[in-house]
Amino acid sequence: MHIERPAGGPVSYKDAGVNIDAATGALAAIKEHARSTFGDSGAAPIGHFGGMYQLPGGPDRLLVASADGIGTKLKLAFVTGGEAHYRVGADLVNHCANDILACGARPLFFLDYVAMGVLDPGALERLVAGMAAACRDNGLALIGGETAEMPGMYADGEYDAAGFIVGIVAPDKVIDGSAIAAGDRLIGIPSVGLHTNGYSLARRIVGLTGDRATDIALLAQPLPGDDVSIGAALLREHPTWVPVVLPLVERGLIRGIAHITGGGLIDNVPRMLPDHLAARFDPASWNAPPIFHWLVERGQMEISEQYRALNMGIGMVLAVASSDETAVLDAIPGARLIGEVVERAPDGPATLGLDTPPRFDGLE
Amino acid sequence: MHIERPAGGPVSYKDAGVNIDAATGALAAIKEHARSTFGDSGAAPIGHFGGMYQLPGGPDRLLVASADGIGTKLKLAFVTGGEAHYRVGADLVNHCANDILACGARPLFFLDYVAMGVLDPGALERLVAGMAAACRDNGLALIGGETAEMPGMYADGEYDAAGFIVGIVAPDKVIDGSAIAAGDRLIGIPSVGLHTNGYSLARRIVGLTGDRATDIALLAQPLPGDDVSIGAALLREHPTWVPVVLPLVERGLIRGIAHITGGGLIDNVPRMLPDHLAARFDPASWNAPPIFHWLVERGQMEISEQYRALNMGIGMVLAVASSDETAVLDAIPGARLIGEVVERAPDGPATLGLDTPPRFDGLE
Repeated sequence: MHIERPAGGPVSYKDAGVNIDAATGALAAIKEHARSTFGDSGAAPIGHFGGMYQLPGGPDRLLVASADGIGTKLKLAFVTGGEAHYRVGADLVNHCANDILACGARPLFFLDYVAMGVLDPGALERLVAGMAAACRDNGLALIGGETAEMPGMYADGEYDAAGFIVGIVAPDKVIDGSAIAAGDRLIGIPSVGLHTNGYSLARRIVGLTGDRATDIALLAQPLPGDDVSIGAALLREHPTWVPVVLPLVERGLIRGIAHITGGGLIDNVPRMLPDHLAARFDPASWNAPPIFHWLVERGQMEISEQYRALNMGIGMVLAVASSDETAVLDAIPGARLIGEVVERAPDGPATLGLDTPPRFDGLE
Repeated sequence: MHIERPAGGPVSYKDAGVNIDAATGALAAIKEHARSTFGDSGAAPIGHFGGMYQLPGGPDRLLVASADGIGTKLKLAFVTGGEAHYRVGADLVNHCANDILACGARPLFFLDYVAMGVLDPGALERLVAGMAAACRDNGLALIGGETAEMPGMYADGEYDAAGFIVGIVAPDKVIDGSAIAAGDRLIGIPSVGLHTNGYSLARRIVGLTGDRATDIALLAQPLPGDDVSIGAALLREHPTWVPVVLPLVERGLIRGIAHITGGGLIDNVPRMLPDHLAARFDPASWNAPPIFHWLVERGQMEISEQYRALNMGIGMVLAVASSDETAVLDAIPGARLIGEVVERAPDGPATLGLDTPPRFDGLE
């Protein structure tokens, strides 16, 4: 069970009212509760990008499932309305699809949960339209869902949405990072924006007030170096990499996959690495979209916070054998060599080199 | 996709701010969006108690999945706190398990989504403990989940939670009601309370104020005819019927299953019936717990509203051949013969006989 990291930035976690020690304690208790249900069910421990389940009496295949939300990117959609609902619907599906792709799984089906105080049919329809479009992009069947009206739970015009995905993987194609070795290459797939993480921080940096007219004006400001507004840059859709990466998985070219979500490169890349290995990055090797430059400058974000709260231009990291580097780079538009796998020093950090920002698009 | 019915009662839907026509339009659009994702995936239309998915290249088995929430029963848990968090965690799992049981499916695994404004580790731990206990009762592995902190989305001390379940069924054991015939018996399994539906209505009838001390006192009032308080009666756990009903499904004794959730007997029993059949109930044949009497009297609920907003003492309805009636009644503690299946008149109602309340426990 992944506890989504609260966005930090110039405000510390403690300032934001979050007690990390308490959260860590609850997380440990939750993992114990979850393990108590496994029995001989073929379920795999929680903590990877997706939970695994071996079908009983079935073929030699594993199901991989994941649950996720959209986070406070929703708050931006509530301000701008219209097609933003469609975009966050697509975000939800693509986030889930990338999570199970990180285990090597092919997406099969998706269900949603949407909760509103009072049903807003227009917003709901656009939200589900975005989910359905992204489901088609990922080969997912949208087979069900729940729309709950909960008077008094959500403010007018607001809602929450969660997605549930199930995929399948052949046991010999499971990506769990165990094949990664020192010397392997780290290939970065570019992000188009924040995707679905860092929005509480971004909202604070933009200075949203809660007054809709004011907030619409704040989001309509032009973004230096980009051809869209700050709001449009923040609402860019989380892309799916299933269509480009899954064929490489099935060809056996991929040893590890990290989906860069809450926790950034610092927390997510080590999730794919065996304990004795570390990732050494060269931030000069990639460019991040202008929105990142705007946020880190205006938010005066420390470098470690940049790489933890934001994806900083990298949406997914693949670990590949050096002999497969070219084949993988050629197959994925925009992909870059961004680092390599090295032996990890005893008690040393699992990520190295994240001491400077990447280059930023739109800057001279 | 099931749009949960808002509770009605003495306040009409329109008074509650719900535009049913608009909701129906959105629902139709949503179904079209969902169908656009099916392709040749083996997905079955949405609208049954669970969505179905035929595994590709797999064994001759179907997966059945469902998503659900807890609804505004959560608001009662926020007032009373403590073990109420555990109870609503169990409610969520058992509701989902009963939904896919209604398709004849055996539960396999479960994932949760929990969203809070600021993480409350104690409430979260009790909530997940309740989920895990119910997972064990249903043979479910809790393989994952997401806990999201969304500052500004939820009031202090509040959260929302959604559950996602996947089960499996052999194609020749799918329960879809197509085997139901006129003359079949309707067996009712007793409810222990409202389970997970009707809580917006119940909160209004109890007269909750939003002031916690006042609301605690209101919920602590003794419930006439019961040995617990009104709050405790309202927070009774939604039971699972998987352990008692699934063996009967696997013996081929069950032709139809309706899980009585939002919409009550009036909306849910027709969901299992072929269009040409109707259900004729004899409300004098079963007893409902005292909380129902208290709610319908104090809320001056019309009879049609009673059977739509509340389960009125019946948690699940099974359709069985008359020759199997005794075997099924003997196998399920507390089960009663509550009606029978009849031919439906052209353009006639799909439920008959729901013109009087059931008997109530605790009354002379």
